[in-house]
Amino acid sequence: MSIESLRDRMAELSDLTALARLAAWDQRTMMPPEGGAERGEQLATLERLAHERATGDEVGEWLAALEAADLDGLDAEIVRLARRDFDRARRVPGDLAAEIERASAEGQTIWQAAREANDFAAFAPALRRNVELAREFAACFEGFARPYDALLADYDYGLTAARVQEVFGELSEALAPLVADAAGNGAGAVVAPPVDAQQLAVPAVLARIGAGDGGWRIDVSAHPFSVGVGQRDSRVTTRYEEGDLLSVIAAMHEFGHALYERQIAPELTRTNAGGGTSMSMHESQSKFWENHVGRHPAFAPVIAEALGDGGFTVEPAALHASLVAVRPSLIRVSADPVSYPLHIVLRFELELALIEGGLDVADLPTAWNDGMRRLLGVEVPDDAAGVLQDTHWAAGAFGYFPSYALGCLIAAQLWEVLERDLGPQDDALARADVTAIRGWLADRVHAHGRRLDTEPLVERATGRGMEAAPFLRHARGLVGAV
Amino acid sequence: MSIESLRDRMAELSDLTALARLAAWDQRTMMPPEGGAERGEQLATLERLAHERATGDEVGEWLAALEAADLDGLDAEIVRLARRDFDRARRVPGDLAAEIERASAEGQTIWQAAREANDFAAFAPALRRNVELAREFAACFEGFARPYDALLADYDYGLTAARVQEVFGELSEALAPLVADAAGNGAGAVVAPPVDAQQLAVPAVLARIGAGDGGWRIDVSAHPFSVGVGQRDSRVTTRYEEGDLLSVIAAMHEFGHALYERQIAPELTRTNAGGGTSMSMHESQSKFWENHVGRHPAFAPVIAEALGDGGFTVEPAALHASLVAVRPSLIRVSADPVSYPLHIVLRFELELALIEGGLDVADLPTAWNDGMRRLLGVEVPDDAAGVLQDTHWAAGAFGYFPSYALGCLIAAQLWEVLERDLGPQDDALARADVTAIRGWLADRVHAHGRRLDTEPLVERATGRGMEAAPFLRHARGLVGAV
Repeated sequence: MSIESLRDRMAELSDLTALARLAAWDQRTMMPPEGGAERGEQLATLERLAHERATGDEVGEWLAALEAADLDGLDAEIVRLARRDFDRARRVPGDLAAEIERASAEGQTIWQAAREANDFAAFAPALRRNVELAREFAACFEGFARPYDALLADYDYGLTAARVQEVFGELSEALAPLVADAAGNGAGAVVAPPVDAQQLAVPAVLARIGAGDGGWRIDVSAHPFSVGVGQRDSRVTTRYEEGDLLSVIAAMHEFGHALYERQIAPELTRTNAGGGTSMSMHESQSKFWENHVGRHPAFAPVIAEALGDGGFTVEPAALHASLVAVRPSLIRVSADPVSYPLHIVLRFELELALIEGGLDVADLPTAWNDGMRRLLGVEVPDDAAGVLQDTHWAAGAFGYFPSYALGCLIAAQLWEVLERDLGPQDDALARADVTAIRGWLADRVHAHGRRLDTEPLVERATGRGMEAAPFLRHARGLVGAV
Repeated sequence: MSIESLRDRMAELSDLTALARLAAWDQRTMMPPEGGAERGEQLATLERLAHERATGDEVGEWLAALEAADLDGLDAEIVRLARRDFDRARRVPGDLAAEIERASAEGQTIWQAAREANDFAAFAPALRRNVELAREFAACFEGFARPYDALLADYDYGLTAARVQEVFGELSEALAPLVADAAGNGAGAVVAPPVDAQQLAVPAVLARIGAGDGGWRIDVSAHPFSVGVGQRDSRVTTRYEEGDLLSVIAAMHEFGHALYERQIAPELTRTNAGGGTSMSMHESQSKFWENHVGRHPAFAPVIAEALGDGGFTVEPAALHASLVAVRPSLIRVSADPVSYPLHIVLRFELELALIEGGLDVADLPTAWNDGMRRLLGVEVPDDAAGVLQDTHWAAGAFGYFPSYALGCLIAAQLWEVLERDLGPQDDALARADVTAIRGWLADRVHAHGRRLDTEPLVERATGRGMEAAPFLRHARGLVGAV
């Protein structure tokens, strides 16, 4: 048995995934609206075929033979990851997988209408079904201490509910009072560039940090996202709203995701190790560029200059104040960088309780509203601006939310170590010179692809496991800056 | 045995083809240049997988069982076409197919350099290899009177060299003298709109003939082309050059291709009958919109108005004269609509002789230059502007060229019958009202998909087999108009 059969299959799956990404990118940026129904069929076919090729009996035979052989280096890693993915994919019966997919699609349709009608009761049965199916899904796997851990493994293999509770406990205990103290510190700090200035500033800023060459695209979509169609074909999107700096910040966020995929070691290309290792690690890269570069005081003149070239004049200090002001609010996606993780802590607590049975779906709105009061000090006026705001649970995605906050934490932890290694970056950022930063990230994080899971990778990069303290120091710095 | 397995497989292959089209479209319009190498891998994987799924033993078993069953209607058509495609795909040994693909890729690389260096001798060995491989490919098939017929079947199933010779003979006998008489009739008729006016006119003209709704895109590429990513997702491209009307004409040409795919009967969607039936028929649809709508005198005011809205004022009569002036020239892709088919007649004669052994590769340049003199009355100054101008032979595509001229002929034949059925279209074209034309084409040509091959479809649509007379009448009309 040679490793080549397995490598060929992994390369094929990598190509099919790339094509699915391209088709999804196109759907959200380029496709004429009438093409939607057929695109759904095309994507379903691709996914079915990829699943078939990933879980065929022949793959099991190759793996058994290769595990008996004494492989080392990358080949051994490829076999290890292939075994993990193969077993996970084969564990779930086809009927259950199809049922989950159906419930997810229906859940999102029902949720959309329920959110518009501000009617949680209309959504509750679909959510209950998703919770039940998630439990059934979790029950397919062995070796997890808690059902939630089996769900987490889809997004962050190796992470556990207990570990997330530990880190989030450390975080919220200190962050909630910090937010309460700082709330409203930036009441007057609103910087509102017009759309045309933003449209010039976004590509200008991205070009300065490295997205200006022949391997990038920047487009517009309803929700900003990033895809690597290939390792040399990185595509980010943003959205432009009148008087909103989100376009620049979202573009830097998506740049971070794209750079991660782009800087994975070339020998991992078209293998099963050639992607970002987890949702948390991916989010750490987007948050790194969003929070630690984009919101760095030394970088504000770079953004201000780009907006200035677009005809919108703003003082860098005012711009920076606007980007870091603490304004505890109802909606996660528009939350400020300090209070943002508290939105996630709440969602994690609630979804864990839903899955473990400590919370009934009917009691969810009350639990949500209580949590928002406790963590963020805000009163939720209605479910549309509360428990109905996100699509994740409607889609049956339990275990996804933690990565949003863990990303913030890991980013802060990386930034501290980076500055310890390379020295303060203020001067370099003022010149938008991020060459050293990109190199450091490539070396410490990106190059490894999927070779290491989240926490082992954090340990390797920073010398410590995940922790809340660096983010809290960062948050205090942001609060102090206004 | 149920027909469902076969239908499911055909739907899957249709989806994979659509994804390959999307990836190719993206490559030519959107992809960052650095993505090229990986895109090549992705497309190769998709093609390999589609070939595997099209030629698997299980497909042969389904077909044998279904042929024994007594199917009728569309199911019978699906089985008939599947058998044809399956047998053709299985006839060619994998080694030969791979060798052909390699020779094609290498041939194009060598040709590109040879054309730049104006050095036919450097290209000759690669061309000789392509000719030999084409003969080997043809020898894989039974039931063809001549090897060239087996090649033609890839582009125009059911067509024969003898039939093409007959029709082209009828054509060139009358067309060559007509071109000689009319040559230079439009010496002064040059209309040269600037790029910005063209960029406004192209979408405006296409919107007026029906490409303005939510199911179309118009983009820019080095060579204009058209793809249907789905039946409701039609994408055309054009290119803009200073002072050239080609952008408008090319866009209308590509619109014709796209409309064909778009108006195929919905019950054929995602079956193996749900595409245009042949290259000739496809080209007839592009030439229909290019020659009979775009170059119709009554339509000139519509184009002139669109250019006028873009800031470029031109008299419709002058515009029309510029679009139909006869200027026998060296280069096929920029030939005028009257002399164009003679470029094709020459290529057909030469490639037939290459395949059948009557012409050696070494003698090709002389034969080319003689043919250009005889058919078009022009002297070829060098091979770069002569035998080296097209990529088809470099890619090993023998049997493709005839469709370019057959398309012109069929389009003219369709137009005459359309005007007989619906009456003269002058008034409707002056209003850019093409509703009746679109409906007539849908009914006579488009709806049938692949149910009928080229000539049976022409007979059904027009009551007669392919003939040169309608195009000759059209050409005389164009000549008379200047």
